[in-house]
This record gives sequence, structure tokens and C-alpha cells, in this order.
Amino acid sequence: MASQPTDAFLQQYMPDKMCFGCGHNNAYGLQIKSYWQDDNCICIWQPEPKHQGWPDVTCGGIIATLIDCHCISSAMATATRNENRLPDSKPYYRFATGTLNIKYLNPTPITTPITLKAKVTNIKEARIYTLHCDVFTKNERTVAAEVIAFLLPHD
Amino acid sequence: MASQPTDAFLQQYMPDKMCFGCGHNNAYGLQIKSYWQDDNCICIWQPEPKHQGWPDVTCGGIIATLIDCHCISSAMATATRNENRLPDSKPYYRFATGTLNIKYLNPTPITTPITLKAKVTNIKEARIYTLHCDVFTKNERTVAAEVIAFLLPHD
Repeated sequence: MASQPTDAFLQQYMPDKMCFGCGHNNAYGLQIKSYWQDDNCICIWQPEPKHQGWPDVTCGGIIATLIDCHCISSAMATATRNENRLPDSKPYYRFATGTLNIKYLNPTPITTPITLKAKVTNIKEARIYTLHCDVFTKNERTVAAEVIAFLLPHD
Repeated sequence: MASQPTDAFLQQYMPDKMCFGCGHNNAYGLQIKSYWQDDNCICIWQPEPKHQGWPDVTCGGIIATLIDCHCISSAMATATRNENRLPDSKPYYRFATGTLNIKYLNPTPITTPITLKAKVTNIKEARIYTLHCDVFTKNERTVAAEVIAFLLPHD
């Protein structure tokens, strides 16, 4: 298992950094930060009123974006961690979302930080990654998701 | 079947209009417009560079937002259309997303308008609506989704 500095968020290894959900050069975007916490990847993010769906509730699409981007970052980090290296080392592993299955269990308030907890649960043919991701407000799980991400061809 | 004016987009019947995906009072949001086209609901939306994921590709979370909001609007419109009335007439029907199952088939370019086509495929117990939604760029289907939406308690 690679030694990961605790202050290194996973999105800093992204090549382009312009993604709406996770790109830290996209001033308009959500700019999420994900970190390793033991064998899970964790993201804590504070929504703003502009991210609402129904009043006082975070928009379901924004939550889907958090899940998608957090899971793609988690897949990248897991793939390289399994090879005992950092995500920006060669070969560079880039993933694309195949499926996003999200179950909204309860409304996710807009006023409280949102915590996402994701983990790779299966790797098939060395390129098809299944991830589970839960979304919490305080200690309540409000959303559960399964994401399938494909490792893209690489040098 | 209700007579729907062709220039009336479905989101204008929303009560709050602040949703990130479909609220037309949310200057930051996507401000989608959905219309009836025969028995389907159609939305055409032009992404901007700030909505990208990987370079030149629309962010998967933005696509999920389009699907979620377009389907919720389609469910509202279908529920009232089935009662031969407009969505802003009483009783007012509001929906919440239960599940969002999205399959990304191909990248969705950022430079070309995106078309969403949704339809209610099943109604269970008068309150559980299943919708199918396809996403197209030009004539290519890039994403397919199934959404389950719940009719919320109402007066």
C-alpha cells in the first residue's frame, strides 16, 4: 500500500482540472476534494443555496455529480495505490463512468456539510471497477450509490 | 389529453424556480426547458465549457442533472395531463427522485446541443412513476437512463 500524504487531495492529480465536479481550475464548478481514510475515500463538501433542488434540499443532480466525480477519483487512486504508486505517476490511469445507479433515501439538506464515503468493491478484467458510495448528512445516510467505472486505454 | 400550448415549457409551472437544474430564477443553474412532443417530453440544452468533465466532453454529473430534472418535470406534466389539466392547477403535484439509473454509452460532446427524450413508462399505486430517458447528440444516443420518481403527499 502506497504511503499517501494526508494533505494530498486526490483531485490534485487530475491532468486537466477543468471538470465541473472535481476540477480545481473550474471557478464555476464544485471543486470537490477527496482523501484516503483507511481503505475508503472520503469527501466533505458544503453546498450553497445555488445548489438547491426543492427549497432547503440539495439538488439531486448536484449529489449525482459529487458521487460521480468522487468515485472516479477514488477509482484512479485505488488503481495506482494497488500498484504502490501515486495517481500522477506513469502509466497515467484515467477512468470514465459506465453506469451510475443512485438511490435517494432521504432529502439531503443544503445547510449542512455533505460527506461521501466510497470504496472499490470489485475489479473485473483489470479495467472494470465497481464502487459503492454512501452520502451522509451528519450521521444520517441520505443516498446510496453504485458506480461502474472503466479504465481507459493508456500508454 | 390536455391541450398544452406549444410555447409553454414545463419548468414554468415549478413553484420555486430555484433548482440548480431546472429553476429559471437560479442564475447559476442550467435553466433547462422541457416541452411536450406528442407523448414524449423533450429538452434541448446547449452545454458551455464550464460544464465539461474530461476535455470536450460534457460532465457526467451535469448529464445526470439534466436527466433528473427533465424526468421530474416530465412526471409532473404527465400526472396532470392524465387528469386533463395543467401542472400548475390544483391539486399541485410535486415529485421527488427515488432512483436514478444511468448508463453512459458514449461521450457526450460539449460543443453540440444535447437532446433529452423522456416518457413515463409505468405508474404504480398512483404515486410511483417510472420514466425512461434517452440522451442524444445529433442523432447518436449517448446516454440511457431509468428514473423512479415519487409523487409527494399533497392537499
